[in-house]
Amino acid sequence: MVRLELPIIIVNFKGYREAIGEKAVQLAKIAEEVSVETGVTIAVAPQYVDVFRIASVVSVPVFAQHIDPVVPGSFTGHVIAEAVKEAGAVGTLINHSERRLILADIDGAVKRAREVGLVSVVCSNNPEVSAAVAALNPNMVAVEPPELIGTGIPVSKAKPEVVTSTVNVVRKVNPDVVVLCGAGISSGDDVEAALKLGTRGVLLASGVVKAKDPKKVLLEMAEAAQRSEG
Amino acid sequence: MVRLELPIIIVNFKGYREAIGEKAVQLAKIAEEVSVETGVTIAVAPQYVDVFRIASVVSVPVFAQHIDPVVPGSFTGHVIAEAVKEAGAVGTLINHSERRLILADIDGAVKRAREVGLVSVVCSNNPEVSAAVAALNPNMVAVEPPELIGTGIPVSKAKPEVVTSTVNVVRKVNPDVVVLCGAGISSGDDVEAALKLGTRGVLLASGVVKAKDPKKVLLEMAEAAQRSEG
Amino acid sequence: MVRLELPIIIVNFKGYREAIGEKAVQLAKIAEEVSVETGVTIAVAPQYVDVFRIASVVSVPVFAQHIDPVVPGSFTGHVIAEAVKEAGAVGTLINHSERRLILADIDGAVKRAREVGLVSVVCSNNPEVSAAVAALNPNMVAVEPPELIGTGIPVSKAKPEVVTSTVNVVRKVNPDVVVLCGAGISSGDDVEAALKLGTRGVLLASGVVKAKDPKKVLLEMAEAAQRSEG
Amino acid sequence: MVRLELPIIIVNFKGYREAIGEKAVQLAKIAEEVSVETGVTIAVAPQYVDVFRIASVVSVPVFAQHIDPVVPGSFTGHVIAEAVKEAGAVGTLINHSERRLILADIDGAVKRAREVGLVSVVCSNNPEVSAAVAALNPNMVAVEPPELIGTGIPVSKAKPEVVTSTVNVVRKVNPDVVVLCGAGISSGDDVEAALKLGTRGVLLASGVVKAKDPKKVLLEMAEAAQRSEG
Repeated sequence: MVRLELPIIIVNFKGYREAIGEKAVQLAKIAEEVSVETGVTIAVAPQYVDVFRIASVVSVPVFAQHIDPVVPGSFTGHVIAEAVKEAGAVGTLINHSERRLILADIDGAVKRAREVGLVSVVCSNNPEVSAAVAALNPNMVAVEPPELIGTGIPVSKAKPEVVTSTVNVVRKVNPDVVVLCGAGISSGDDVEAALKLGTRGVLLASGVVKAKDPKKVLLEMAEAAQRSEG
Repeated sequence: MVRLELPIIIVNFKGYREAIGEKAVQLAKIAEEVSVETGVTIAVAPQYVDVFRIASVVSVPVFAQHIDPVVPGSFTGHVIAEAVKEAGAVGTLINHSERRLILADIDGAVKRAREVGLVSVVCSNNPEVSAAVAALNPNMVAVEPPELIGTGIPVSKAKPEVVTSTVNVVRKVNPDVVVLCGAGISSGDDVEAALKLGTRGVLLASGVVKAKDPKKVLLEMAEAAQRSEG
Repeated sequence: MVRLELPIIIVNFKGYREAIGEKAVQLAKIAEEVSVETGVTIAVAPQYVDVFRIASVVSVPVFAQHIDPVVPGSFTGHVIAEAVKEAGAVGTLINHSERRLILADIDGAVKRAREVGLVSVVCSNNPEVSAAVAALNPNMVAVEPPELIGTGIPVSKAKPEVVTSTVNVVRKVNPDVVVLCGAGISSGDDVEAALKLGTRGVLLASGVVKAKDPKKVLLEMAEAAQRSEG
Repeated sequence: MVRLELPIIIVNFKGYREAIGEKAVQLAKIAEEVSVETGVTIAVAPQYVDVFRIASVVSVPVFAQHIDPVVPGSFTGHVIAEAVKEAGAVGTLINHSERRLILADIDGAVKRAREVGLVSVVCSNNPEVSAAVAALNPNMVAVEPPELIGTGIPVSKAKPEVVTSTVNVVRKVNPDVVVLCGAGISSGDDVEAALKLGTRGVLLASGVVKAKDPKKVLLEMAEAAQRSEG
């Protein structure tokens, strides 16, 4: 498994029109530039069909947005961990609020990621669920109150207690699991606030993908991450 | 929308270990050779992450195994029609028995395919469901009794009445919809039987992907298709 | 199977606080009074746990809100048609917009309803999907544009073309299927409009369940239905 | 919330033909007799539509087989906790292997059960998932390896390490959570083995429901439970 340096900024391209195909490649190149300039790890999570295309030409870590908890076989329309890995991804999101899984399948997907050497980042919606996720031993858990996703209201400011509580319960259940936070992160300040609350990175989407100047925003975020760690 | 010549053989790579990544490219090249030699349309439906990679180097039509019924937006882990199209696919399977959709989403996915110019092949499990699918006006419906999928027992021989009944009811509900059949197809004879029952092609997977000599099997199938049309 | 006289008004109790347990029984008794006074068929669709309780003491037809497409067996948490029937229900909703099913399961549930003698009312969201449903041969299809459900804006007035188009395509695909409409129905006028567009009844919920005076509203609706048929 | 004495035997009626309607009432009466004779808590989990009917005439604790994680409202076909409670249930299964939920919904359902005063028994498939469930703070977790369900091969004998490991991790994550085990339990010996491994009860179905003489089997089980606690 690739070892990703912390702190980490993961940019989820979702299904946004601004981050599909050739535009996805361009956005990944911006992430690469900012990462090179600042030394901060920036990963991108594009549409499945864009994983290979991006991983072939850009050096930042590429994540899938989801994998299925199955071994290679008769699974039309499923996302096979081995295929994702061979396409060049180094990790995968699991259980994003827009792609929730049944509990046994989160367990299965985390295990599959581990087997093929993909970094697993499991999303959760509150501290209790974060603790449950931590018990499954993924590499990272990203807590994101669904009601804040896409709002521009950062969880790190609007609900800091959700973040600190998650950091605490995850540490108790499984201290090996890295905690990220997401939802509403759209500025360097938001990233700084997130790291100060004890997380080691952020998962974000529209804050960068739909920004007027994605490079400027991402640079601010990476610099904030750099400072917080300094 | 690309116009695909009939009859058509669609090879579904599913999540088979034999048809992932570089192996998927090799299998698509075999399909290309056979298609060039025989003049019969052969399409391949690989893992999402392999769509771009294959479409970039092979001339056969590439299908996605599924698309979601959503427009570009906040849909992490979903498969956006526009991304599939830009990656080089010309069509998509919808509602495969291993990736069933709720009815309203089949309708939505067929409409999305049409909007972006992807050929839609909707799978069904029996004549009644095929008729229902036909009412949604996809380009093709592929009837596959789930109990025969992967068995090597061809629907065209084991349950010919399912195929003829599907051909009849689809013609009645919507004569514009092309009928394919699938499940258990693994030889030229099976393809011939399928076409004689009134279908215009087949959807198959393990019969080719897991064959000892995929090229030999596919060539037999394409020649049978050629003959049946002659 | 019980033969239900048309036109029919089906009151869906959903999971509303105003229509649970003893309150569900009271609401069903109101439906009974109005039905007796006007001669119009009024059915109620309460929570599963209230089916037996209501059917034991009230004479109006009771519907389940959903059944699963399975025969009796190892199906924890599923709703078995035989159990619903024995509890006293005479019919069931299937595929309500709040409880969508995959297409093959709608087919399966309609067949199970038929086997045990339950009237099947399958919900759809637009004319295309209504036509697809009609191909599965349920007793009734209820078209409900999801965006109007619970709004008080009646489909019969806001989108009459959805209703007339549904009536036309269903007649073409399967003239045996009775067309109802739903979404936003909350007055006698709305019912009258629905019947004038060619439907034979309505499926509604909040318009009655959350009305200040449910009996008054229901009586207006039943009288409108009576008039339209006169 | 009702306080259930331990050890407990929960008999899941699933969707079995032998345990629907009037037959469900008879089986619940047998459970009542055995419970009275032995002093051991025996609960039954019938079809939703049979909850009221059974709870009205039998004194054993009645469980729903599932509840949805929603408050009363527009949720057709969902199972509302308040309705289950008012129908006479004292608890509910959640996340049975035949009715899996997404993780956030298990959290939501456990919270809803707590709010209305229903005992929550959440099913899991292995120790890791059991630990995750424990983090959500239900009243009980029932570990059931899916591959053993319905086989008559008891988890307590075939995979004792699954049971002991679950007991250990649940104690570590949340010692307030009672551990049950299930899958393949069909005799007094199986129950005894389960309790010796540290569980406080069993969740079973076909072992009793499909037994030639349910009373005899249940009596053996209850006596074994009595002895183990003695």
